[in-house]
Amino acid sequence: MNTFGQKFRFCTFGESHGKALGVIVDGVPAGVRIDIDFIQSEMDRRKPGKSEVETGRKESDTIEILSGTFEDNSGQLVSTGTSIGMILFNENQKSRDYANVKDLFRPGHADFTYFHKYGIRDYKGGGRSSARETSARVAAGAIAKLMLDELNIKVQSGLIEIAGIKSENIDFDYAKQNILFTLDKNKEEQQLKAIKDAKLKHDSVGGVVLVRASNVPKGLGEPMYHKLDGQIASAMMGLNAVKAVEIGDGIDASRSCGSINNDQITSKGFETNHSGGILGGISNGDDIITKVYFKPTPSIFIEQQTVNTQNEDKTYKLSGRHDPCVAIRGSVVCESMMACILADMVLLNMTSKLDTIKKAYL
Amino acid sequence: MNTFGQKFRFCTFGESHGKALGVIVDGVPAGVRIDIDFIQSEMDRRKPGKSEVETGRKESDTIEILSGTFEDNSGQLVSTGTSIGMILFNENQKSRDYANVKDLFRPGHADFTYFHKYGIRDYKGGGRSSARETSARVAAGAIAKLMLDELNIKVQSGLIEIAGIKSENIDFDYAKQNILFTLDKNKEEQQLKAIKDAKLKHDSVGGVVLVRASNVPKGLGEPMYHKLDGQIASAMMGLNAVKAVEIGDGIDASRSCGSINNDQITSKGFETNHSGGILGGISNGDDIITKVYFKPTPSIFIEQQTVNTQNEDKTYKLSGRHDPCVAIRGSVVCESMMACILADMVLLNMTSKLDTIKKAYL
Amino acid sequence: MNTFGQKFRFCTFGESHGKALGVIVDGVPAGVRIDIDFIQSEMDRRKPGKSEVETGRKESDTIEILSGTFEDNSGQLVSTGTSIGMILFNENQKSRDYANVKDLFRPGHADFTYFHKYGIRDYKGGGRSSARETSARVAAGAIAKLMLDELNIKVQSGLIEIAGIKSENIDFDYAKQNILFTLDKNKEEQQLKAIKDAKLKHDSVGGVVLVRASNVPKGLGEPMYHKLDGQIASAMMGLNAVKAVEIGDGIDASRSCGSINNDQITSKGFETNHSGGILGGISNGDDIITKVYFKPTPSIFIEQQTVNTQNEDKTYKLSGRHDPCVAIRGSVVCESMMACILADMVLLNMTSKLDTIKKAYL
Amino acid sequence: MNTFGQKFRFCTFGESHGKALGVIVDGVPAGVRIDIDFIQSEMDRRKPGKSEVETGRKESDTIEILSGTFEDNSGQLVSTGTSIGMILFNENQKSRDYANVKDLFRPGHADFTYFHKYGIRDYKGGGRSSARETSARVAAGAIAKLMLDELNIKVQSGLIEIAGIKSENIDFDYAKQNILFTLDKNKEEQQLKAIKDAKLKHDSVGGVVLVRASNVPKGLGEPMYHKLDGQIASAMMGLNAVKAVEIGDGIDASRSCGSINNDQITSKGFETNHSGGILGGISNGDDIITKVYFKPTPSIFIEQQTVNTQNEDKTYKLSGRHDPCVAIRGSVVCESMMACILADMVLLNMTSKLDTIKKAYL
Repeated sequence: MNTFGQKFRFCTFGESHGKALGVIVDGVPAGVRIDIDFIQSEMDRRKPGKSEVETGRKESDTIEILSGTFEDNSGQLVSTGTSIGMILFNENQKSRDYANVKDLFRPGHADFTYFHKYGIRDYKGGGRSSARETSARVAAGAIAKLMLDELNIKVQSGLIEIAGIKSENIDFDYAKQNILFTLDKNKEEQQLKAIKDAKLKHDSVGGVVLVRASNVPKGLGEPMYHKLDGQIASAMMGLNAVKAVEIGDGIDASRSCGSINNDQITSKGFETNHSGGILGGISNGDDIITKVYFKPTPSIFIEQQTVNTQNEDKTYKLSGRHDPCVAIRGSVVCESMMACILADMVLLNMTSKLDTIKKAYL
Repeated sequence: MNTFGQKFRFCTFGESHGKALGVIVDGVPAGVRIDIDFIQSEMDRRKPGKSEVETGRKESDTIEILSGTFEDNSGQLVSTGTSIGMILFNENQKSRDYANVKDLFRPGHADFTYFHKYGIRDYKGGGRSSARETSARVAAGAIAKLMLDELNIKVQSGLIEIAGIKSENIDFDYAKQNILFTLDKNKEEQQLKAIKDAKLKHDSVGGVVLVRASNVPKGLGEPMYHKLDGQIASAMMGLNAVKAVEIGDGIDASRSCGSINNDQITSKGFETNHSGGILGGISNGDDIITKVYFKPTPSIFIEQQTVNTQNEDKTYKLSGRHDPCVAIRGSVVCESMMACILADMVLLNMTSKLDTIKKAYL
Repeated sequence: MNTFGQKFRFCTFGESHGKALGVIVDGVPAGVRIDIDFIQSEMDRRKPGKSEVETGRKESDTIEILSGTFEDNSGQLVSTGTSIGMILFNENQKSRDYANVKDLFRPGHADFTYFHKYGIRDYKGGGRSSARETSARVAAGAIAKLMLDELNIKVQSGLIEIAGIKSENIDFDYAKQNILFTLDKNKEEQQLKAIKDAKLKHDSVGGVVLVRASNVPKGLGEPMYHKLDGQIASAMMGLNAVKAVEIGDGIDASRSCGSINNDQITSKGFETNHSGGILGGISNGDDIITKVYFKPTPSIFIEQQTVNTQNEDKTYKLSGRHDPCVAIRGSVVCESMMACILADMVLLNMTSKLDTIKKAYL
Repeated sequence: MNTFGQKFRFCTFGESHGKALGVIVDGVPAGVRIDIDFIQSEMDRRKPGKSEVETGRKESDTIEILSGTFEDNSGQLVSTGTSIGMILFNENQKSRDYANVKDLFRPGHADFTYFHKYGIRDYKGGGRSSARETSARVAAGAIAKLMLDELNIKVQSGLIEIAGIKSENIDFDYAKQNILFTLDKNKEEQQLKAIKDAKLKHDSVGGVVLVRASNVPKGLGEPMYHKLDGQIASAMMGLNAVKAVEIGDGIDASRSCGSINNDQITSKGFETNHSGGILGGISNGDDIITKVYFKPTPSIFIEQQTVNTQNEDKTYKLSGRHDPCVAIRGSVVCESMMACILADMVLLNMTSKLDTIKKAYL
């Protein structure tokens, strides 16, 4: 179950403190230009240790492509249609002593559930359940973006809320350049202060990521049980720390009435976009809009109650290096997952009409 | 893509105004007692036309089992391990004239997207995109519940909000017996009035379903990309009209801080359940809690703006029979999907530890 | 695991003596003309009781389409892109007494293995393991053929050997019109005699089916683990009674040398077709050729040794109605499976090149 | 489609002359002892350049495990239930000039079909279609064997025929120690001579691999469309150069009669094993027997006719390093694929009976 997607799919491995993380991206059509600099730039957006609001762990997160590409006739590196293997070596696994935590379950973390599921866990930095795994998702997402780019489909993201403080001006370009990835320059200072305050108290805060995909073709999404909204919800909720997902108006829609919530249709397009660009699980051509809600980082530096693997009551006080607000670096991951889903849906939709198939073969 | 699930999986067919709907449930272990009366009783909870707050379409929704069961040594009907086929014939497809709507896209519905995806659509009652498809989900869910029942796992649901009016007392038993499936007897009158008011104005309202699964074993959920929370989100968001899904504290968690949101662990269990019973995508033994947000029914009886298949501007006024609040009948469907997911996860988790496998084979 | 295929996929249910058999065909592109008469004619080719070399069980095998089709603008019935449900009711389940066989395992049959796998079995006519299940495959195959027909791809079959007597003239048209489906008119009498002789001795014989697909586009087959030859082998070997599968020269190739076995390539095509139209698991444009080897029908009317469910030694003498040579009716099934595989591969291959995708979306 | 298996599954990447090959093995239960020396010893059995009957390419094929393992309480390395990443760097990619072959299709190879499928191909040593890919299968197979070993299931292989010369004494232990992997010491000299003779003539020969799995539990195989025999056929036929697969008596069964071919059942087991240990696609407890037929290596050093990418007629004379009989090194690969299939089937079968599930959870 370490594979995501149907046609555009990726399979990953790797633990927080293991030798390496890796991903195999499968199903990429032949001919997609593979821009290694772009892939690395995506890795850099997610990599830790870039600012004071991120974990102190330093990793270069240098991605290496091992297969699946070749020079085309013009000498450009392109995909060949075979599986693309990528690898990322861990560099900064602190060799500190884990002896005192190896039998303890950290509250809010997956230690407890992994141990009960598998009877064993890699206790070093969370092992496989560490958010470090998301680096592989970003590598896959970068390939997806290169493919979407060939079709002019664009995916963007940013923080629309941090510690309950909402961003009001939505500026995706600004989001790319500030350390909070916040969408609103005017709220940046206030949001940063909230994070710092929490950090001072050895506590943590949550946040909300907004993802927007634009220029999405009509018709993406596979009824009944692989719908576009369902897959977005699955991918986002499956990220560490995410506890809620909205499409379009989301919760507000449930408190609206039909006459307001229905997007009226005109020959020039939809008048509004309450639906978030999806009707019946299929894209309608409007922007795809989703909001992803991250809980506060469970790693806090305050004494907590827990048990050990023998189910004995213990108190626990974490030390180490952690993001005080995981939603921030989470935004790139959300964006990457959206790209992977759209790439998958683009491929899946190629067989919806006989006409398209006839054109390709006859 | 008409198949849901991995090990416990179902595949469905059928349109709103076709001859029949059907489902094949695959992966049911041999030996599960198949109680036909129970399955029918689940169908009856979802079937239309039971009250004034539901569509006037009358269907008996009589389910017939066609395969996959046999008498065991004690003469009881049990599953044989082979695929279980079930069918449901449509009875009350009104033979009214669809001529005036066949080229029009109903706002808020999937007509527009199905047409653009497939180049053709079954315009009679929404065809495959009709919520009538969910009857097949309920049949599959009933089988899942029979299997979960053998393991004492219980799934319940009810309306926690209708038209913005929140239920405060959570009483799942009461939810089963009232026409709104509301969880709160004290709010029933107010909620009913809100629906009736909307109906009078030819409008519709939304609502929120709460689903709870209890006595869930620790360890359910398959990292990385088939996590329990991800699958719940996918299944719920993939339902017609759903626009948001929360697990545990959901959105509120994103506005909390780590020291409050972390559920402290004691030798007697978790002190709180902010997580909704899921950590790292795996069940922790606590109740699984999810909230599912339904938009207002898009079928309203007010004139709306739309286009036809030639993209010409048109006005449109619906007639027909519709639920003024789809969340109500949606609650049984949410419950069924939760049951299917848990049944799937129970089966998938059978191979997490070598010890379990050795016990079965050696 | 009652689902076959990836993009063009079908899911089936039903037992030999149950109420009905059914199939859901999923992934059919919208716009394929659905010719019900053709589908029924395919059912008729497989249905039992047509001649003296077939089981005496009489079934009309009338297939009913329940969903997934609609009239297009010209009034023709076409696929809509949604799942196509089809059903076939059993008519002639002899209500004879199974009491004396219910605890006995028939040699050469799946009774023994189903019982050990599931702890229960439907002993009436083999239950789910009966070759009656293949009727659902033929229904799915007929849909596949209708789709392939739109691309001028053709699949044919016939018996190339019966009871060790080889057909030498390969005439697929003749194969369709004789009761043995034999490919060689000159060998028909001899082959028929061999079957009758075996029948007189209450014994049974084996046979070999040749399947040929022509006008297959280059490029079908999905490396590494969903290759065209691998899928053909899987589908054919998975049929009841099949014990060997060859592609192209098959076994003979293993005794040849490279200088002979390599098909030389010219600007007009391949000079020979030792490869059976597949290189590296991908079609090369030549005819796809496969041979499928069926063992003799295990149902014979001679006393045999067996055990009962308590593992006590028993003798067993079968009565009932059986095909003396299952390969005969098996030929239509092989042909149907080939059609399903090719339909699947045609769809899967739609995403191999970025160029095709760009043409469809831009 | 670079993923094999359902529950025990592996995903691979890598080309003949790329940087590295790799595999992610997913679905391994936690607690399987991971013996790296054993895995390397399996790699060594397949690696090239060990003898005069193998390609001159020298590779150490050193496998490195990157994830998915941890020390258990006793300090032994075991699987953790998470995905196991393994990598193998290419060392001996000869930097010879490919300029003269880059536009030519080698007869009998996949060059032609890859080019037509993808519009581009990696012409260096066959790229992804090279048999070098099978090193990743052997690494996965080694993990499968470690798991099967915990259940005392054993898989063995050897050459039962080389260049048409049959091995008569079947000695799997001897097969492991001779350079031909032949099963018959008495035929070794003759078989070796046949290979050398072909090599002298710049030609190549075929061969047949026998695989036997013993101590296989009854009940493995998932009807209808993931049967044990079907999966074996698929896996074997999907290997480069394989053109036929038999289970049990295979082709001979089709020329036998029911009274001989049926394996009689006694309270002590089956009297014969014509079936090859599989009935109805499910293991019956007897040895699983399959024969895999490899065509002669297509790489020969005789002038051949071909075309270039512009479809112009050309003659072609290969130089380079190649196995004169690919079946030899293929035997380890067949054995590995059998191990992977059985591991998968063992896991899939864990949910066939409710009783097993109840024991695990209650």
